[in-house]
Amino acid sequence: MNSIKVIAFDADDTLWENETFFRESENEFCNLLKEYISGEELIKKLLKVEYENITSYGYGIKGFMLSMIETAIDVSNGMVSNKIIQNIIEIGNRMLLNSVEILDGVNDVLENLHPKYKLVVLTKGDLLDQERKLNKSNLRKYFHHVEIVSEKNESGYQRILNHLEIEAHEFLMIGNSLKSDIIPVLNVGGHAFHIPFHTTWN
Amino acid sequence: MNSIKVIAFDADDTLWENETFFRESENEFCNLLKEYISGEELIKKLLKVEYENITSYGYGIKGFMLSMIETAIDVSNGMVSNKIIQNIIEIGNRMLLNSVEILDGVNDVLENLHPKYKLVVLTKGDLLDQERKLNKSNLRKYFHHVEIVSEKNESGYQRILNHLEIEAHEFLMIGNSLKSDIIPVLNVGGHAFHIPFHTTWN
Repeated sequence: MNSIKVIAFDADDTLWENETFFRESENEFCNLLKEYISGEELIKKLLKVEYENITSYGYGIKGFMLSMIETAIDVSNGMVSNKIIQNIIEIGNRMLLNSVEILDGVNDVLENLHPKYKLVVLTKGDLLDQERKLNKSNLRKYFHHVEIVSEKNESGYQRILNHLEIEAHEFLMIGNSLKSDIIPVLNVGGHAFHIPFHTTWN
Repeated sequence: MNSIKVIAFDADDTLWENETFFRESENEFCNLLKEYISGEELIKKLLKVEYENITSYGYGIKGFMLSMIETAIDVSNGMVSNKIIQNIIEIGNRMLLNSVEILDGVNDVLENLHPKYKLVVLTKGDLLDQERKLNKSNLRKYFHHVEIVSEKNESGYQRILNHLEIEAHEFLMIGNSLKSDIIPVLNVGGHAFHIPFHTTWN
């Protein structure tokens, strides 16, 4: 661990809350369409649409909005009102304006680490949205730069290591997702810390 | 110029066609809504909506899709059919799948420069979309990395210089937009080449 030069942090649900907002929006979405379908069924349909759209839309709020609109048209057999589609767009627009809630302990950890390491944010998702959150978070000052990638897989990490011009053993990734933040990093020879979401930092 | 270490290329309309596809999609959009409004008026409205949404949606096809939906609801006084909204989504989905048309001379220029300089792509727009285009373009092999930013302004360029760990005079930007690719780069002390769109490279 003494060889670490760069520490990369996942952003959503590692530095700040994210999933919580999606769950709240899904609830509002269910409410809008309750005359057509039960909430449980609707969420299943929405997830299926989101999954089918992930290669074209990627992760992020705009893709979520488009998938909600597509799902609403589908479950209403093309009868959903323009009003409801507008409401869906408003749900998304509100998410884009949400305040950023930094998770407990994050400030202290970054304050401590940033004199000693090159810190970067390494996140999936929509560029503009992540930049907006970073700006609102007041955390930008700690980071050397922000790397936003479309997929966090082994070849993605390898590309980042090349780009940072460091060896894998000089790289530490910190995040809440085993699949995105931990396993591929270990597979390319880097270090990784798993911080499950909804626990506090130490 | 002998001090140049990094050459950054804008992507859309510098490496490959982009605006052309947006113009074609706008024509289809006008066609869909011709019962409500003239094409000319519709494009004016759409531009206004896009402009208002730029801070939340940024640049890219998903934001363009959402702005078209919003405009369609607006110009039809909330009467536009689900079918037309689906057609709008299809226009966007087709754009996301478009083949990438490399502009004349780009391959030769990159082939020539890449042994001598660190080449990067530096573009605004949607991350996933730009990565998709880069992969389809077969140009990735020439680039050290891809930098996708939400705005190309002076502070953005300064951040990139810090991140690349080079001085401004070691940086050359090549692109088709005076506003995004040239002026802010010159203002921070870098070099810039302007390649107007729809001319061929030399």
